[in-house]
Amino acid sequence: MNEQQLDLREYEVQIDLAVEARELAGSPDSQIPGVWSETEKANGITVTRMHIQSDEGARAIGKMKGHYVTLEVPQLRNGDSDLQDKVATTFAKEFEGFLKRVGIGRTASVFIVGLGNWNVTPDALGPLVVENIMVTRQFFELMPDQVSEGYRPVSAVAPGVLGTTGIESSDIVQGIVEKAKPELVIAIDALAARSLERVNTTIQIADTGIHPGSGIGNKRKGLTQEILGVPCIAIGVPTVVYASTIVNNTMDLVLQHMEKHTPNTDKLFGVFGTMEGNERLQLVKEVLDPLGHNLLVTPKEIDKFMEDTANVIASGLNAALHEAVDTDNVAAYTH
Amino acid sequence: MNEQQLDLREYEVQIDLAVEARELAGSPDSQIPGVWSETEKANGITVTRMHIQSDEGARAIGKMKGHYVTLEVPQLRNGDSDLQDKVATTFAKEFEGFLKRVGIGRTASVFIVGLGNWNVTPDALGPLVVENIMVTRQFFELMPDQVSEGYRPVSAVAPGVLGTTGIESSDIVQGIVEKAKPELVIAIDALAARSLERVNTTIQIADTGIHPGSGIGNKRKGLTQEILGVPCIAIGVPTVVYASTIVNNTMDLVLQHMEKHTPNTDKLFGVFGTMEGNERLQLVKEVLDPLGHNLLVTPKEIDKFMEDTANVIASGLNAALHEAVDTDNVAAYTH
Amino acid sequence: MNEQQLDLREYEVQIDLAVEARELAGSPDSQIPGVWSETEKANGITVTRMHIQSDEGARAIGKMKGHYVTLEVPQLRNGDSDLQDKVATTFAKEFEGFLKRVGIGRTASVFIVGLGNWNVTPDALGPLVVENIMVTRQFFELMPDQVSEGYRPVSAVAPGVLGTTGIESSDIVQGIVEKAKPELVIAIDALAARSLERVNTTIQIADTGIHPGSGIGNKRKGLTQEILGVPCIAIGVPTVVYASTIVNNTMDLVLQHMEKHTPNTDKLFGVFGTMEGNERLQLVKEVLDPLGHNLLVTPKEIDKFMEDTANVIASGLNAALHEAVDTDNVAAYTH
Amino acid sequence: MNEQQLDLREYEVQIDLAVEARELAGSPDSQIPGVWSETEKANGITVTRMHIQSDEGARAIGKMKGHYVTLEVPQLRNGDSDLQDKVATTFAKEFEGFLKRVGIGRTASVFIVGLGNWNVTPDALGPLVVENIMVTRQFFELMPDQVSEGYRPVSAVAPGVLGTTGIESSDIVQGIVEKAKPELVIAIDALAARSLERVNTTIQIADTGIHPGSGIGNKRKGLTQEILGVPCIAIGVPTVVYASTIVNNTMDLVLQHMEKHTPNTDKLFGVFGTMEGNERLQLVKEVLDPLGHNLLVTPKEIDKFMEDTANVIASGLNAALHEAVDTDNVAAYTH
Repeated sequence: MNEQQLDLREYEVQIDLAVEARELAGSPDSQIPGVWSETEKANGITVTRMHIQSDEGARAIGKMKGHYVTLEVPQLRNGDSDLQDKVATTFAKEFEGFLKRVGIGRTASVFIVGLGNWNVTPDALGPLVVENIMVTRQFFELMPDQVSEGYRPVSAVAPGVLGTTGIESSDIVQGIVEKAKPELVIAIDALAARSLERVNTTIQIADTGIHPGSGIGNKRKGLTQEILGVPCIAIGVPTVVYASTIVNNTMDLVLQHMEKHTPNTDKLFGVFGTMEGNERLQLVKEVLDPLGHNLLVTPKEIDKFMEDTANVIASGLNAALHEAVDTDNVAAYTH
Repeated sequence: MNEQQLDLREYEVQIDLAVEARELAGSPDSQIPGVWSETEKANGITVTRMHIQSDEGARAIGKMKGHYVTLEVPQLRNGDSDLQDKVATTFAKEFEGFLKRVGIGRTASVFIVGLGNWNVTPDALGPLVVENIMVTRQFFELMPDQVSEGYRPVSAVAPGVLGTTGIESSDIVQGIVEKAKPELVIAIDALAARSLERVNTTIQIADTGIHPGSGIGNKRKGLTQEILGVPCIAIGVPTVVYASTIVNNTMDLVLQHMEKHTPNTDKLFGVFGTMEGNERLQLVKEVLDPLGHNLLVTPKEIDKFMEDTANVIASGLNAALHEAVDTDNVAAYTH
Repeated sequence: MNEQQLDLREYEVQIDLAVEARELAGSPDSQIPGVWSETEKANGITVTRMHIQSDEGARAIGKMKGHYVTLEVPQLRNGDSDLQDKVATTFAKEFEGFLKRVGIGRTASVFIVGLGNWNVTPDALGPLVVENIMVTRQFFELMPDQVSEGYRPVSAVAPGVLGTTGIESSDIVQGIVEKAKPELVIAIDALAARSLERVNTTIQIADTGIHPGSGIGNKRKGLTQEILGVPCIAIGVPTVVYASTIVNNTMDLVLQHMEKHTPNTDKLFGVFGTMEGNERLQLVKEVLDPLGHNLLVTPKEIDKFMEDTANVIASGLNAALHEAVDTDNVAAYTH
Repeated sequence: MNEQQLDLREYEVQIDLAVEARELAGSPDSQIPGVWSETEKANGITVTRMHIQSDEGARAIGKMKGHYVTLEVPQLRNGDSDLQDKVATTFAKEFEGFLKRVGIGRTASVFIVGLGNWNVTPDALGPLVVENIMVTRQFFELMPDQVSEGYRPVSAVAPGVLGTTGIESSDIVQGIVEKAKPELVIAIDALAARSLERVNTTIQIADTGIHPGSGIGNKRKGLTQEILGVPCIAIGVPTVVYASTIVNNTMDLVLQHMEKHTPNTDKLFGVFGTMEGNERLQLVKEVLDPLGHNLLVTPKEIDKFMEDTANVIASGLNAALHEAVDTDNVAAYTH
């Protein structure tokens, strides 16, 4: 038995952010029935709140029914700590609002699950966030009368990945939930992006939980209210992108660029230029996959990007979950 | 609410190795009823196998009934990789024998629990061992027909500590055990030593599980067959020592040293010299504790010691648990 | 003053491996005047030894005069430790041969420089190698009569990068060379690849030293015999690749793929299909650069790839530099 | 040749803080000729400024002539981030004052040297501080006209230790100083304490540079103005303590404790009780050293203590060295 023989396909990464799905479904301005949304821009941060209310809406968008909030911050990778503080504060406010909208009370106990692999930098978002979470559940368990106002019980675990533990992270989380009995699970995970620009610049909150990809069949489990018995809010950040996605996006840009300058792009790009985006992506994949060249890649500076993003999310969660922690000063609570 | 207000006392560290307890109970050569033991020395490694068979024996020794194996390797801290390989091989053989003695079959599925805190070097033994364990359970779950001969299902998790997760590690382990359903739990933990020389030179295997100290009362739980529903073998290594222990041991040595050179130690040390070891330790504690000076300390070179010890244990476990992994070559399976 | 205002362009990454340059210059089989080369394949490792002997050859290839050895191991990213051992052994033998060819004696003292930034995973090759080098110079300095046969003085430093030290690494190395007075400098550095497949699968040895890119002008210095006063051998591994390179290579593959299946690719790709590779790359860059999308990217699994590659090089160097270290067992000398 | 054969004694650790030396020399209140000192207490921080002005004073105290500032913060190990901020601010003010007293100008370029070994937690103070230093020299070199007011050129390197580089750190620093030409060197180093309580609670600034211990003879070099050609300010923090020191200090406390309760300690401790502190320490060493039991030890929580202390010093230095960095907000400049 060697690793080769027993190689396992990992979770198919989730590649669809709700904002992307909506874009693919049609113009962002168009009114899709069963889908409510609003967008706000300030401080270089675009916040989109979306509610997919009906099956019809879900079908139209291609995403599950539920609440979604997305923060898009194109400059987040610039290492500007003022901007990072603003994003943490915005995230905290949005997350507080999100909890209200989905009916989670102010004192509900929360269990934060940091999915992913410590030893794989672009997959370490969950573990990095968990490291900076202010955990308080032990105080409520062991000395409940001494806990000050303005806190709620928060616990946090990074359960590891199947390849390093031998156990589905879904099983680990389920087992812990049955013992620790939280009223809400928050699961943090790294995603694959639909474009290189999204990597470590977008944060999505959703009350749909985590669903495994379809790749590995029915043996892999997700983290959902059905499985856990309590609601599960997923926080996702794209940190990797397929080589084929980069190629396809770039060809889109090249085509757009050429169209501006040339009347007849048919001649320029032939049939290739007239393909639909998806068709072209399919072609690129057909070529790359059998060669093993369709790797997931990540920016060279990923170590710093992960640290910054994890700090934003941990600071934001600490402020959102404890009233006694001020959103103006969230960053002080993490290292 | 700040950390001060809600300060928690950690698990009282386990300070008694069986070999130490036996020594305290009387000369190692004396025959204690209800206690069987044998000792073997080779390659600079002293192996002591002990079986505390009766309540009488347990009372006499001051340790729980059960099987114990101790490896004492005074030179283990010297960074000699040949010796480390020999210790790993000896550990593997002893652990195999131990499994047989306590009735664990060759194919029994095993869940390895690495107790302790990643971020506290002398407490990181468990997490470090888990990092180097060869996990195989996922293959048995997902592709059972493709697993080669000579392997068994092994899984491994480092559950963190109460202060960083907010959940008792005992609860986390229990929750996972109920989902993963192993037939044996192996728990790895760092201990406090009775002397500075034992630090990172002694490894103990015991089938008694992990018992919390008495410090925090009945709210803290252990890892035992009663709690987990399956046998629990504990592997412990002393990695820290109380300042008061160092003082007391040193004063013993000073007294012994003086006795050799002087007829009348009464004059030299007065009443202090005639105190029992325990009485003197009590006096030292009485002085140090209220001043906050009775710290747990660890050797300056602890980072390297922990790495070496964790590699020995992980290599040894990999070889002991899988027949297909050769004890002559165990070190190759860890980084 | 903020980081933005004072932003510095880093060293332009070296993108040309000699084997790539030769390929670009013409068919590998063609005889280029002033360029000697031979290629050997065994164990999944392709070794190319090249000597660019004249200015004419240098111009034809577009690389400096000098000796080059390249190891290409397409499967090196598979995590196969047997293959890694073979590559380390091959590297050691090739490096020994290289030293002879360039006239470095068996006892010449060597200073190994690990260029790059610890905190940026794909840039940490140099520091990672240095961590696993067997340094011996201190023994020759402090107790020369006690050093066994078969060793030479080896020292090793990772000087950091301009952005974290404030000092050119070239200046740091020069300053140390003047004090430590080695007879040879070996500089290890991460490179940008001309294709995603080369990332962490190719190792190049060259006696041309390290030359800074042209980007930042004459203020940046390299590591060459002229500057250091002693020969400088560079060991380089591609660990990152530009997004534009991925796009261009993929489009090549797509075009090749289509040509096999379609008689008339003109219609399929229009003008784009008839462009030269370089022309197309230029077009892709023109589109991506102003959008800030032409990032350097690296595979998701870069942490493991870096560790493996650094171990191969460190093991290989330890065996090549000390006769007493056996090439059959090189891997044992690193962690 | 193996490590055993060629074992090297490390730098003898510096164990004398000026405040300790003064205490040993006599009552802190006594007027020692040629020694000026003043002490200030606020916020749980005791600041002692001392100037040993004459050879007579130096002999009396047993320390070199020069300026010394010591911050003693018994609560610094409690993990209280408010206190840490206060200590950073106090350190910054004291360091600014120190620079003035020793005649270093506001724009003098500074080279910070982080001595010690990354891989040995209690020895990693220097490297940890360097990681959090705001380096600016590169901006002055490459774009001098664009540097804002209120900054000076600062560079920083952690040169490693002899055992891992093969080169004396003094030689490395000297070589870099000759290239980078700073006007001041600041060397940060971990020390051995005279008592367990001092570990990570005391910071000393001195303009005497770093002097190697006497252990290894005249082959080891220090970092002094004589060697470097520019002034060298040393910042030292005790992070380890000898087992013998712990024993001796504790016996002092035990004796003091007993004296309070018993009229006749002679009977209690005999000759041992009447020994001088130094005599007793000698006895303890005589017993422990040949057994190899006189280890350097460090508190179990050393990882956190080192991180906190390094942040205090880095924040303090960043504020002290750049007028544009506000001492009220120093902590924001480090991670």
